[in-house]
Amino acid sequence: MYRSHSCGQLRTTDINKEVTLAGWVQKTRDKGFMIWVDLRDRYGITQLIFDEERTPAAVVEKAKTLGREFVIQVKGTVIERESKNKNIPTGDIEILVSELDILNEALVPPFTIEDETDGGEDIRMKYRYLDIRRNPVKDSLMFRHQVAMKVRNYLSNEDFIEVETPYLIKSTPEGARDFVVPSRMNEGQFYALPQSPQTFKQLLMVGGMDKYFQIVKCFRDEDLRADRQPEFTQIDCEMAFVEQEDILNIFEGLTRHLLKEIKDVELGDFPRMTYDEAMRTYGNDKPDIRFGMKFGELNQVAQHKEFKVFNDAELVVGIAVPGAASYTRKEIDKLIDWVKRPQVGALGMVYVKCNEDATYKSSVDKFYDQDDLAKWAATTGAKPGDLICILSGVTNKVRAQLSALRMELAERLGLRNPEEFAPLWVVDFPLLEWDEETERYHAMHHPFTSPKPEDIPLLDTKPGDVRANAYDLVLNGNEIGGGSIRIHDKETQALMFDHLGFTPEEAKAQFGFLMDAFQYGAPPHGGIAFGFDRLVAILGGQETIRDFIAFPKNNSGRDVMIDAPANIDEEQLKELNITLDL
Amino acid sequence: MYRSHSCGQLRTTDINKEVTLAGWVQKTRDKGFMIWVDLRDRYGITQLIFDEERTPAAVVEKAKTLGREFVIQVKGTVIERESKNKNIPTGDIEILVSELDILNEALVPPFTIEDETDGGEDIRMKYRYLDIRRNPVKDSLMFRHQVAMKVRNYLSNEDFIEVETPYLIKSTPEGARDFVVPSRMNEGQFYALPQSPQTFKQLLMVGGMDKYFQIVKCFRDEDLRADRQPEFTQIDCEMAFVEQEDILNIFEGLTRHLLKEIKDVELGDFPRMTYDEAMRTYGNDKPDIRFGMKFGELNQVAQHKEFKVFNDAELVVGIAVPGAASYTRKEIDKLIDWVKRPQVGALGMVYVKCNEDATYKSSVDKFYDQDDLAKWAATTGAKPGDLICILSGVTNKVRAQLSALRMELAERLGLRNPEEFAPLWVVDFPLLEWDEETERYHAMHHPFTSPKPEDIPLLDTKPGDVRANAYDLVLNGNEIGGGSIRIHDKETQALMFDHLGFTPEEAKAQFGFLMDAFQYGAPPHGGIAFGFDRLVAILGGQETIRDFIAFPKNNSGRDVMIDAPANIDEEQLKELNITLDL
Repeated sequence: MYRSHSCGQLRTTDINKEVTLAGWVQKTRDKGFMIWVDLRDRYGITQLIFDEERTPAAVVEKAKTLGREFVIQVKGTVIERESKNKNIPTGDIEILVSELDILNEALVPPFTIEDETDGGEDIRMKYRYLDIRRNPVKDSLMFRHQVAMKVRNYLSNEDFIEVETPYLIKSTPEGARDFVVPSRMNEGQFYALPQSPQTFKQLLMVGGMDKYFQIVKCFRDEDLRADRQPEFTQIDCEMAFVEQEDILNIFEGLTRHLLKEIKDVELGDFPRMTYDEAMRTYGNDKPDIRFGMKFGELNQVAQHKEFKVFNDAELVVGIAVPGAASYTRKEIDKLIDWVKRPQVGALGMVYVKCNEDATYKSSVDKFYDQDDLAKWAATTGAKPGDLICILSGVTNKVRAQLSALRMELAERLGLRNPEEFAPLWVVDFPLLEWDEETERYHAMHHPFTSPKPEDIPLLDTKPGDVRANAYDLVLNGNEIGGGSIRIHDKETQALMFDHLGFTPEEAKAQFGFLMDAFQYGAPPHGGIAFGFDRLVAILGGQETIRDFIAFPKNNSGRDVMIDAPANIDEEQLKELNITLDL
Repeated sequence: MYRSHSCGQLRTTDINKEVTLAGWVQKTRDKGFMIWVDLRDRYGITQLIFDEERTPAAVVEKAKTLGREFVIQVKGTVIERESKNKNIPTGDIEILVSELDILNEALVPPFTIEDETDGGEDIRMKYRYLDIRRNPVKDSLMFRHQVAMKVRNYLSNEDFIEVETPYLIKSTPEGARDFVVPSRMNEGQFYALPQSPQTFKQLLMVGGMDKYFQIVKCFRDEDLRADRQPEFTQIDCEMAFVEQEDILNIFEGLTRHLLKEIKDVELGDFPRMTYDEAMRTYGNDKPDIRFGMKFGELNQVAQHKEFKVFNDAELVVGIAVPGAASYTRKEIDKLIDWVKRPQVGALGMVYVKCNEDATYKSSVDKFYDQDDLAKWAATTGAKPGDLICILSGVTNKVRAQLSALRMELAERLGLRNPEEFAPLWVVDFPLLEWDEETERYHAMHHPFTSPKPEDIPLLDTKPGDVRANAYDLVLNGNEIGGGSIRIHDKETQALMFDHLGFTPEEAKAQFGFLMDAFQYGAPPHGGIAFGFDRLVAILGGQETIRDFIAFPKNNSGRDVMIDAPANIDEEQLKELNITLDL
């Protein structure tokens, strides 16, 4: 037996007990006649003491050889500590060591195993197994486990069944981003790894499973943005005999439960907002509503004068930045530079200072009088002391730009409190979105999303205006979940494929099994999927997901620890009937 | 709202309630003036009644159009049934229908959706979404979910942390059976799908995770035997600071807990047996010990006469078949034919009838007298009325043959009761096994298994005799789990790679990261993995795993429902820089 107790377990009630502990040497302090060692394991830190007077000389000698991260086993007696450490649960006791066994030595680690480490991202990824020893990473992984357990138990108690769907499936039309897997037994053919279990969960509904969930890995081979991973985890859910309202209620319940259990935060009913309203009010379909700065559209009150920039614009829109009227000219110029950066792309910015004396000072005083500016203040909700920032141009672009500015200012003003949680349902997403590149409509969510029945006639006339029974759950400006009520009849599904530019043959080849299934008694159904990595990170109060993934990949999709992907040998390629063209 | 209650919910206490139900038409009985419909969902069956006197005429008309598996919604009143059905929980009531809505029609299903279906394996796989509607499959999937929940909750309560390890990893030396995944971002390179998370769980131990588990998909691209799948699920576990004894105790606890919770079976301490003993006593490293028929080795008492077949044999070994002395000559001949089938491969079989009068009658009476035969009976434990079956030849082959015969006879004699559970630890597996084809030793478990320290000197002299700290958990003749204490120091790991025929360069290229990790303070550790598909099937009292997998693949690794694997288009291949040689 390697240990009688963990390193987080012993208290003053254990004094005089003979114990055996094992763990890693966190640090040593050698005062010559006395040596202290902090012994660490997953559960905590316990102080060991080696004392010339009370510890056998050979043991003291051995203790002097201990380096950081050595793995040791000790026997000894629990004694009361002279100078207690109130910061750790074991801080009242220490172990007077009588026996010491070095189980494994350790080279000096390439970075310090401390909460604040001196190691950069790259080196920590290469030695991820050492990074995991650090509390911030270890605690994040343990937190992830706790969240997963709570999700599973909640859904299981709600009669959901976790069903494992296959990983070796078939490439789909969004297949450009599929990872594929050559089959040895079926020459020249490939499996694909699922981007989501979408069709399988729908088939489970056809199969009468009624309520399905799965915490499941999904895969997407795309250019990776800073905080995306080629493999990611979803909480995937589907229900039969439901309308949108049922789904929103159930998963609002799950989210509320998690917040209560994990953060002890009581959330009321989640607000709801249509996609249109979100875009109009926040320029964004996943608005962070922990703070205001709502958009005020100014076309009506800003396009009646000689200011050509506004007059030519499709949209003139502003936000009131609280307390920012005091910004200096230099500070405002910096803000203008910020919106003109290529990542944001505005051509310029008009501003209005709302003075405490209810007068206004703007960068367009040449064109607008105080009455005009007062109307702008009313429209954007600006109060004395606020700064109104106004952008103009093509609607979609301007919204995105002003949304970026709004988030940036919120960050600077400290309005994005990670311990505050503001959920929001965004509903009535468009069914289709126009793709400039391919010059055709694509499904905004996926081809199985049902249009709102009343909008179906618009499919032929104004496809872009058709609304879907689709919804996203937004938390603190992040989309944490999204789903839809699905099409469940063959005719509507065929209509959709047609509008998405599939020939009937293509539709049959790709999704014949699903359309077949719809002929054998498919129930109405719908579902949702949560991005689990992101959800856990937000619940953990973090912006990035990487610490919540045990072995993440870098921005090139590489695992730098194991050095994958890698070349495979000729024999393997030959068995797969594959030649590389490089 | 599609329903107020499920189809398994209503009782006599609900009589007179107005309810809304939705589900599938299981069957209809049309008596003209009255129509009964069995309405089914995941939760049960409720009888609907359409009655010319009490149901609106239009509704009755519509009810007459209902076919099997139509999806309908009904409103009506709960009433007491005249002829009650004691076989179902809702059998005391029925619904007098007032409104009927056909949510979706259904073609006639290609097989009956009944517990005993008329559909063969192939058609049921093609329409798996219909097969899942059948109770045996649906219940198996729900059972699987319950087992998974119990496993997770048990291990979580025991301080294990579920950590998700990556699916996109690197091909390994057992890579011949790896599925590989070409990377688009890393030209010409491949990921591999994990055959198990072995190295990652060891790295988690180096990372201080202490107790890890994961219910996880694994992948193996090999010729599929009848009951294997290219993707399968493991309960994967690893612990630090443990010896074999700790692991056996913890996972004996898990297994005992599952049997108690799921089957209400109390298991005592699990017996343990060395690999050598299992091979000697049962000819098999996963013996079914629900019944006897232990091997009796007869060399000592059978090689002293003129019977050349026995005298030339490396091993003469028999089993006593209870009560089979009464077999006719014809029955015995059939048994001899059975052992001579190519699948078994024996050249012949000697038998001894142990008569009730304590005399013996054998097929080798010419060579052996009653005293000889009495010794054989004593060695095999045969009692009056038993039949001793004896095979002889090369040890390994004879053991396998007699083991097959033992299992066959147990089956015929009804000794394999699926409701009886006999667990067994098999320990002290050989570290290495000789591979005839490559003419070198391979790791019997995997290259990370630690040899017993006292056997290390044998590595150079008698590698085949080196025992490993490796163990299997056997349940009713199936290996349900297996694991080992791992090597945790770089020197021993290098020694192992050397004995497995890796050059230091090859070892470094493949496992450099693991050997590096061992230099930075690796704790002693070990683990186990359970085959979850098999475990669930055995707990469910079934021999085959397929009903416990939602969407299984066939023996060619194909999903015949979605028709995968499939060809992918030229553009995809081009992006991956791949040409097919077919």
